[in-house]
Amino acid sequence: MALRRLLFGRTLANRDDHARKLNALEGVPAMGLDGLASAAYGPEAALTVLIPTGAAGLAYAAPVTAAILGLLAVLYVSYRQTISAYPDNGGGYIVSKHNLGTLASLVAAAALMIDYLLNVAVGISAGVAALVSAVPALHPHVLALCLAILALVTAINLRGTPEAARLFAVPTYLFVVCFAGVVAIGVVRVIAAPGAPAPVVAPARPLAAGQAVTLWLLLRTFAAGCTAMTGVEAVSNGISAFREPRVQHGHRTLTAISLLLASLLIGIAYLVTVFGIPAMDQTQPGYRSVLSQLTAAVVGTGVYYHITIASLLCVLTLSANTSFVDFPRLCRCLAADGFLPRSFAIAGRRLMFSLGILCLAGGAALLLITFGGITDRLIPLFAIGAFLTFTMSQAGMVVHWRRTGQRAGHRRRGPLAINALGTVVTGAALIIIVATKLTEGAWITIAVLPGLVLVLRRIKRYYDRLDRGLRDEGALDYRDLGPPIAIVVFERWNKLTDRALRIALQLSADVRAVHLRTLDGPPQAAGDDDDDSRAIRAQWAADVVAPAQAAGVAPPALRFLRAEHRLMHRPLLALVKQLHAEHPSRLIAVLLPEVIQTWWWQALLHGRRARKLQSYLLRFAGSRVVLIHIPWYLEEPRPEHGLAIED
Amino acid sequence: MALRRLLFGRTLANRDDHARKLNALEGVPAMGLDGLASAAYGPEAALTVLIPTGAAGLAYAAPVTAAILGLLAVLYVSYRQTISAYPDNGGGYIVSKHNLGTLASLVAAAALMIDYLLNVAVGISAGVAALVSAVPALHPHVLALCLAILALVTAINLRGTPEAARLFAVPTYLFVVCFAGVVAIGVVRVIAAPGAPAPVVAPARPLAAGQAVTLWLLLRTFAAGCTAMTGVEAVSNGISAFREPRVQHGHRTLTAISLLLASLLIGIAYLVTVFGIPAMDQTQPGYRSVLSQLTAAVVGTGVYYHITIASLLCVLTLSANTSFVDFPRLCRCLAADGFLPRSFAIAGRRLMFSLGILCLAGGAALLLITFGGITDRLIPLFAIGAFLTFTMSQAGMVVHWRRTGQRAGHRRRGPLAINALGTVVTGAALIIIVATKLTEGAWITIAVLPGLVLVLRRIKRYYDRLDRGLRDEGALDYRDLGPPIAIVVFERWNKLTDRALRIALQLSADVRAVHLRTLDGPPQAAGDDDDDSRAIRAQWAADVVAPAQAAGVAPPALRFLRAEHRLMHRPLLALVKQLHAEHPSRLIAVLLPEVIQTWWWQALLHGRRARKLQSYLLRFAGSRVVLIHIPWYLEEPRPEHGLAIED
Repeated sequence: MALRRLLFGRTLANRDDHARKLNALEGVPAMGLDGLASAAYGPEAALTVLIPTGAAGLAYAAPVTAAILGLLAVLYVSYRQTISAYPDNGGGYIVSKHNLGTLASLVAAAALMIDYLLNVAVGISAGVAALVSAVPALHPHVLALCLAILALVTAINLRGTPEAARLFAVPTYLFVVCFAGVVAIGVVRVIAAPGAPAPVVAPARPLAAGQAVTLWLLLRTFAAGCTAMTGVEAVSNGISAFREPRVQHGHRTLTAISLLLASLLIGIAYLVTVFGIPAMDQTQPGYRSVLSQLTAAVVGTGVYYHITIASLLCVLTLSANTSFVDFPRLCRCLAADGFLPRSFAIAGRRLMFSLGILCLAGGAALLLITFGGITDRLIPLFAIGAFLTFTMSQAGMVVHWRRTGQRAGHRRRGPLAINALGTVVTGAALIIIVATKLTEGAWITIAVLPGLVLVLRRIKRYYDRLDRGLRDEGALDYRDLGPPIAIVVFERWNKLTDRALRIALQLSADVRAVHLRTLDGPPQAAGDDDDDSRAIRAQWAADVVAPAQAAGVAPPALRFLRAEHRLMHRPLLALVKQLHAEHPSRLIAVLLPEVIQTWWWQALLHGRRARKLQSYLLRFAGSRVVLIHIPWYLEEPRPEHGLAIED
Repeated sequence: MALRRLLFGRTLANRDDHARKLNALEGVPAMGLDGLASAAYGPEAALTVLIPTGAAGLAYAAPVTAAILGLLAVLYVSYRQTISAYPDNGGGYIVSKHNLGTLASLVAAAALMIDYLLNVAVGISAGVAALVSAVPALHPHVLALCLAILALVTAINLRGTPEAARLFAVPTYLFVVCFAGVVAIGVVRVIAAPGAPAPVVAPARPLAAGQAVTLWLLLRTFAAGCTAMTGVEAVSNGISAFREPRVQHGHRTLTAISLLLASLLIGIAYLVTVFGIPAMDQTQPGYRSVLSQLTAAVVGTGVYYHITIASLLCVLTLSANTSFVDFPRLCRCLAADGFLPRSFAIAGRRLMFSLGILCLAGGAALLLITFGGITDRLIPLFAIGAFLTFTMSQAGMVVHWRRTGQRAGHRRRGPLAINALGTVVTGAALIIIVATKLTEGAWITIAVLPGLVLVLRRIKRYYDRLDRGLRDEGALDYRDLGPPIAIVVFERWNKLTDRALRIALQLSADVRAVHLRTLDGPPQAAGDDDDDSRAIRAQWAADVVAPAQAAGVAPPALRFLRAEHRLMHRPLLALVKQLHAEHPSRLIAVLLPEVIQTWWWQALLHGRRARKLQSYLLRFAGSRVVLIHIPWYLEEPRPEHGLAIED
């Protein structure tokens, strides 16, 4: 317990909740890490598609980036609108649910869940891969490093979103400042040396052009570059993490993330073109990433370079954090609607939805172990989820504007047009991604998605059935409130039996004691068993019947049952069946005396008979039977400190 | 469940017990495998000590064997007496308990437990080692083979001792017949070719004498040869496994085992001397065991040789079975006396003491894994336990004869002398074993033994304290049997709440309903919480208060408690504390409605809140509180088949 407190902090009260919300400055590290980290791989992915075109391809960096920025602008405006329209977590699930119907919302939810899960695995493994290529000595420990970082991010998030945001603010803002510096110095160097700026360190020489630039190639470049936008939707999914006024803080965070991302993309596209930096083949030895080449070309490989690359590593590795903020909130929404177990909607000791965090961590750990922590094997599974959600969310907003427009009497043409454009473009990007990556592993995502939707629907169906079964039918019925038949079960005659009998007499005048015989197995010697019975009968006559007669009360009845198979529950179920037949309308209360264990080792000394009996009886005895636990303590427990009634 | 039944057979009734006892023919494979297997390693161990003396040493095989046979005779007579004197499992523990006091009995019990555990590990690993040296392709799988055989022996023993005895009878009797044949053929060959019989296959040439034969060497030879006797005590420990008349069946089994063992030892000693077969250094390449050389020398390396060696392998491997018969019975005796958890005394589904079997298997698996399944590392730990028990058992019998003699008025000189001789000789052997093997690993056994004794005493102390606490103080008190205060806890208003209220009203007129607020965490929006409370208040007025007034009954009280830390038990414990203060003498019954889960996956959908609350309340609420489980079923359970009352 002390360890748990040390790791995760004290249990927070519900009333502490308002103090644990984020402002925009904290929102960027909490939800922006995924988006900002995209700048590290988006441009690289686009330039990689252009490798076969050689140096000629670099000329297309500018128009493709312009198209991506246009899409980013569309997404920015669109998600800004979504935040205003759905201020209680307006992720793809909620928007689809309100506008496209249940099935569509479940598809969006499943896509988001898969996306978040993969984001954790991909982010951590990509960060570790970059770290390992910088420090080759760590190479044998890739998976261990991945799992250690996963454990760290999980633990910090179990402490709470504000703690994670504060802790991760340092690398996030360091990354922003460093790359802003690189871009600024690069621009200054271009202006200072007009014509052809001389790079400090020469970038790799682009390959000779082996392929012409076709429209299909440009489309693929665009689709690959679109991965730079994954993570932009994060803010809309996590609005409930912000303090009031939520919408305003959400808008500010979204604006900050979008502006930072756009600046990075523009700067990278500009410098890549000017310095002539190509993507390199990742499978070849001597590979260096575009951002690494770029930074080296602008500022050389000194201290600045290393700080910049270190901040990039941190941001990549910690980009998993965005999932940890949003996944549990998505699960909570699903649980509130009955599509996930209700435990996902229960706030844990730090007011986080701990179960969601643990499931995300468990799933990511499984993915990392299955794929050995290798990013390349995970990447093809990724991006589909994100773009599917983008598309559905945009489509949902189109329907939203049409509906609200109809209600208000005038069409909201501007917002509708923006979301319609967003739908078409993200939809097209989705189709290209699916088409190009299907055989590389994307089929796994496409296969898992319907299964997940099915599970969500099955869960809902169970809860619906339960709710129908439990629905109350009106007024409480005060008739037939006769006392129950109280059955006291005992193995040995002791204080516990005494106590159970007294409690049974407090609950009902109809008390029956049942002694279970041969519960431990066959008697050691013939006759042992009968001796026991005789002894108990004698004690019963002296200690129960005689005092009852003295007090003028009807004494409880004593009965012996043989547990021929050493299972307590079978003779008791037989007795219950018999009593049901005799008294069909009466309640049967089974009293179970139990020695309460204070320490774990006492559990070893007591066995689990009482608990096993409890679960058997509860499972099979039917609704006419109730179970009464009679605790008995070797030492009376001291009540917890600070217990006070709050109503 | 079906799988369990397939593996272990149907659940046996107590009344089946008498049909599951052993006769002498079954007793030999059940309890004799350990003793007979000793013939394989005892002579070998003695001859190994004689290696440095070269061919001259072989001359001492006869006198040392004679001494060992003498000791075997003493042990035989002694254990025969023990069986008669203690017909309910007269192992070293019981004999020491009755004659030497508790501490001595615990030392004997701990020594026996360690001995049995090591016997399993050593037997299986020795068998596998022999198998691997015969089939070298199996070499990389030594540990896996050990664990597989352990699992097999465990599973068969969980089915029952008779099943194990029947299954293992084939290899046991095959081994006996084969070696009897070898000895007979050997003797015939000696008689047919007087002077120097020519071996079919020449045995290894003894080394040149490098060391003189000293008394100390002979003593060590004797001590090493004494390991041939381990397992002789097994019958006396397992008497309760025999059918009536137990003593007679036990005597027959002991006689059979002792005679078979003695014949084997005589035959081996004779043939070894006649054919001049020396022990070989086990660490050298080309090593062959004495029995292998002997068999080859007498009958050649044909089919007979291979069958004989195969039966030897089986017997070695299955010698673990003796421990599986005796260890659980020893644990049962200890549990009956309160030195081990009582679960060890409960007969399992096949009327075996399953917990003992599982503990033995678990401990042996741990030993095998720790020592990598290598016999040589385990051997030095062994034999100490066996000889310590021998010595204590013999000493106990000496005291027994003195006492019974004093009681009967005349000394029982004969039996007493035999046991006294046994005490001295086994004690001496023990001292030699400890002295020669201390640094090789015997210190582990010597270090573990007191720890085990301490644990046994601690367990006893706990049970004694519990029994003192539970001891009944006499007549049942019929005063102050007022009804309890019934508290109905609910989260939502539904049929479950309704049912719990009705049951509470059946148990008491003083019913208080408690609604726990903010149990899932902070309300989504400010005011949500108050809306809920208002709705519940309205429903309460309509569905509970109004019908009560109509029925002319006092309605239950409604109260709201805030679960500020989302833990059900804290506000309830606070309420219990308050009610205690107000009504110090009244019983408080907390009613917990619970949806009963039929399938494992439903547990995932319901969470464990009810069970968690139960364990917290039971642990902390104190003995004035009882817990009432109100089960609710989505589908009413169907009762099990074949339920009938047996009293």
